[in-house]
Amino acid sequence: MMKLMPKRSMTPGPRDERGVLAARIVTAAREEFAEHGWAGTTLRAVARAADVDPALVYHYFGSKEGLLDAATNPPQKWLESVAKVWTTPIDQLGAALITLLLASWADDEIGPTLRAVLQTAAHEPSTREKLRRIVEGSLMGVSELGSDEHDRLVRRGLIASQMMGFALMRYVWKIEPIASMTDDEAIAAIAPNLQRYVNGDLAAGPQKAESRR
Amino acid sequence: MMKLMPKRSMTPGPRDERGVLAARIVTAAREEFAEHGWAGTTLRAVARAADVDPALVYHYFGSKEGLLDAATNPPQKWLESVAKVWTTPIDQLGAALITLLLASWADDEIGPTLRAVLQTAAHEPSTREKLRRIVEGSLMGVSELGSDEHDRLVRRGLIASQMMGFALMRYVWKIEPIASMTDDEAIAAIAPNLQRYVNGDLAAGPQKAESRR
Repeated sequence: MMKLMPKRSMTPGPRDERGVLAARIVTAAREEFAEHGWAGTTLRAVARAADVDPALVYHYFGSKEGLLDAATNPPQKWLESVAKVWTTPIDQLGAALITLLLASWADDEIGPTLRAVLQTAAHEPSTREKLRRIVEGSLMGVSELGSDEHDRLVRRGLIASQMMGFALMRYVWKIEPIASMTDDEAIAAIAPNLQRYVNGDLAAGPQKAESRR
Repeated sequence: MMKLMPKRSMTPGPRDERGVLAARIVTAAREEFAEHGWAGTTLRAVARAADVDPALVYHYFGSKEGLLDAATNPPQKWLESVAKVWTTPIDQLGAALITLLLASWADDEIGPTLRAVLQTAAHEPSTREKLRRIVEGSLMGVSELGSDEHDRLVRRGLIASQMMGFALMRYVWKIEPIASMTDDEAIAAIAPNLQRYVNGDLAAGPQKAESRR
């Protein structure tokens, strides 16, 4: 590949230009990985979409793995939003979590990143690992959840199951009417279910009691 | 491709043999599509996994699209289980739905089919369409759900969002402790949430009331 790289690309531009080009490549990569998956994405296609020389993509990101890593890294501002949501009083966490989800997917940078993560997690072990870290990291600073460590992890997993399933239906698979329901409808419908995973009684649902008779 | 096909394959064997070979190809295809996605799967690799001549795969299924279609078609016995679950009294549907999900994924034929659907839906419009039909078909014969058509469709979508998110976490992404919790734990934890989507009040969750003050 190095042979194909024109001289001018070998000399990185000023710091600002590098940042701008790298951001453009990452944006294009999120789109390509989300649309075509890991196997269906080539660095050449990403370069074309970003309107840069393919050699520059290699120069900045080293490999397809490096590019995927950059494309699926949660933006810092999202990590901050996640940390902030966990400062919500625990009895309002259900609503806060679904509200954060809606705001995150509406964001120009966070939405495409989350989409790229969900779309490539199916086939790329490194993204699946990242997804696992996102689920785990999404509990930063929370100590109130659950009665013990196992209960805490189960609750976190259940919360993630509902949020990811909803995000896939609404934003990735676009299945109606979930895709076009209003944010208010979504919050009213989903917040109480998340709230039950936050601090409801998970061991003795009414159905379980029923089947015990 | 036809040129590569040896004479003996041109003469389909007895009906039984054809059925056995086709089933072996479909089984291998589910595995390959689930593991490598649409773009990452080749008919040649499926043929190798099924230990048949690639020409036979073309002969039976016509194309990669035809093979994906066969690999992601829900088995008849699953459609019957789905139809049956909807005869459950409505106040026990939540538990019946999550119980069906657990049984379906544990089944040797249904589990791999659902996995192949979820894994290829990300990038294959035809599978996404199939996923949509599965969500829609999953309401066969149900008239009690919801107060009107819109409410009914919203409830169906919310049920699907929880069930698919849980299935992805547990069976596809294998995120702990969801992946290894017992069936009983899963039913107790999730049935009441599904039940709320079945016949709970979706418009006025406690969180919504809270935010209205």
